[in-house]
Amino acid sequence: MGASPAGPTYAASGVDRAGVSRSLSELLRAVRYRPPPRHGRVVPLPGHYAGLIRIGRETIAVTTDTVGTKVLLAEEAGRWEEVGEDVVGANVNDLAAVGARPAGLVDTILCVRPDPATFGAIGRGIDRGLRAAGCALLGGESAVVPSIVKGIDLGGTAIGFFPRGRAPVTGDRIRPRDVLLGIRSAGLHANGFTLVRKLLSEAAIDLRSPRAGATIPLAQELLAPTRIYTRAVDALASRTETHGLAHLTGGGVRNLMRLHDGVGFVLDRWPEPPAIFDYMQRLGGVSDEEMYQTFNMGIGFVLVVAPDHLAETRRRLARAGAPDAVPIGRVERGEGVTLPSLGLSYHGYA
Amino acid sequence: MGASPAGPTYAASGVDRAGVSRSLSELLRAVRYRPPPRHGRVVPLPGHYAGLIRIGRETIAVTTDTVGTKVLLAEEAGRWEEVGEDVVGANVNDLAAVGARPAGLVDTILCVRPDPATFGAIGRGIDRGLRAAGCALLGGESAVVPSIVKGIDLGGTAIGFFPRGRAPVTGDRIRPRDVLLGIRSAGLHANGFTLVRKLLSEAAIDLRSPRAGATIPLAQELLAPTRIYTRAVDALASRTETHGLAHLTGGGVRNLMRLHDGVGFVLDRWPEPPAIFDYMQRLGGVSDEEMYQTFNMGIGFVLVVAPDHLAETRRRLARAGAPDAVPIGRVERGEGVTLPSLGLSYHGYA
Repeated sequence: MGASPAGPTYAASGVDRAGVSRSLSELLRAVRYRPPPRHGRVVPLPGHYAGLIRIGRETIAVTTDTVGTKVLLAEEAGRWEEVGEDVVGANVNDLAAVGARPAGLVDTILCVRPDPATFGAIGRGIDRGLRAAGCALLGGESAVVPSIVKGIDLGGTAIGFFPRGRAPVTGDRIRPRDVLLGIRSAGLHANGFTLVRKLLSEAAIDLRSPRAGATIPLAQELLAPTRIYTRAVDALASRTETHGLAHLTGGGVRNLMRLHDGVGFVLDRWPEPPAIFDYMQRLGGVSDEEMYQTFNMGIGFVLVVAPDHLAETRRRLARAGAPDAVPIGRVERGEGVTLPSLGLSYHGYA
Repeated sequence: MGASPAGPTYAASGVDRAGVSRSLSELLRAVRYRPPPRHGRVVPLPGHYAGLIRIGRETIAVTTDTVGTKVLLAEEAGRWEEVGEDVVGANVNDLAAVGARPAGLVDTILCVRPDPATFGAIGRGIDRGLRAAGCALLGGESAVVPSIVKGIDLGGTAIGFFPRGRAPVTGDRIRPRDVLLGIRSAGLHANGFTLVRKLLSEAAIDLRSPRAGATIPLAQELLAPTRIYTRAVDALASRTETHGLAHLTGGGVRNLMRLHDGVGFVLDRWPEPPAIFDYMQRLGGVSDEEMYQTFNMGIGFVLVVAPDHLAETRRRLARAGAPDAVPIGRVERGEGVTLPSLGLSYHGYA
């Protein structure tokens, strides 16, 4: 990963991405087995947002993700609905990134002790997320494991499918001159919280008060649940002019490289990030480079669209609940992701 | 839950089942949303082993489970392959309990720090499990979260399907006079380890030595991976004489009640449990009642079969890798699970 020359980085805050990457390679190297076709046909899509498998006449997409260290902020604030909603959002947005419509979710809660009020709040958040995504709860696992976890861990797995006539959107149709349309995020979503917590603790910030310029307590602002892009994407994913779909999670703008590694993504119209990002950046003197590869910086989802369909796509997005989709850049020959106005350039996703 | 009159119980060892049950009810009460049919049709099967959803012309089954506190034993012994295999086994056996054939698995590893050797060993175990089940790895999530976990947590989610002509086996066809066929377990599998660890630590047992009568170190004996019943069940699940399928996990023989609550399961031919169970029981003076509702006691999977198909079913199981399936009891009018020879009787699964 490209560490910033100065200031705190995500790696230094406790997340050893290179170590994870090395360890994951070891795991994947060991898993050599490929089942016979009568058990389903895997659609190879390494490094993408979802696993795809053909079962009979359907293609099923599977995503799995946890809320990560955002739960620690939930615990401090005693607010659990937001992270409940994040379990759904983190997973269904990854489904959206291959153009899949969510069908079902299973959740996993690991805890030190089961508390009915906490579980109830998590349930209300999950319910809100499912409503936004049009997704069913298919089951879950709750384990009381005080010897394994310190507080609560919250994760889930979502399965999705492709309505008749829709093929998975993998990004392979992306080509130079395509337009990048960005849809706003609702805040930090559920990424970068290891760094957030480090910055807050070093500056001894009181989470119960609003930051300067805000009206709600900082904890509440930071906990704002992941915006769910399902309905917006569902309105576009069957259309051939939709060439690529990216959910900006951990890794920030680097996520675009998961769609196609033979083109350059030029972000020359990135909108002013919301004030919360500026606040976090100033708190610890974090570099621009680190900010844009850790947080969503105000854009949670990107559509890569054929240039002659830009206006039409924006109209469709507006009707599907995303009137705030704006052009943020374009595809060029080359490789990597660049933000010319900040002099930033990223190469490689992991 | 029915606590035993004396001796250690699973609840006392740290797992507050009633608390989990109350908390889960709160969560489920809050999740009220039911999606429209164009997002898939959920097949209601509350309390069963898997969630089922109809997507287009396929029915997809989803299970999610963790290895639980068995990972702590893996850590002590420095052996990770077995629990890697358990991630697969715990999930695909739950798929087998509704008659679904596994298609894909996603794993979740939460850790304090990523270690390539550990991840490699987990991967080798996952590979072995996938081979035994005929299942593909579809993806996974690895999170380095030292602020959430103490060691490693290992879990997964599996999706399965029903080959042409096969309906889910839910247990609704179970009726009095059906025969219960039990297939041997490979040891403790991945359940009851919170109690196991308590018993071992109170008796200050050295895990590196074999127990009396055994030839391998106790740690290795306890870590023996979950037997995978996929191929055996796959040979029977399409047949109408197969009335019910039960994976004996946490809850032991109580699991049978998940299949049908309007009949009694009489276990009057339960085979002598392997010595490891007797060893654990004596170590802490655990009651029979607690043993049979916490461990698999030597039988990891049960098939409920029409009585006139017993011999034929055993032949089919033998050809599918389970020559050791034996009659362990029968279905009667009534309710609950009884073990007459031990004077045990259980009412209710949770």
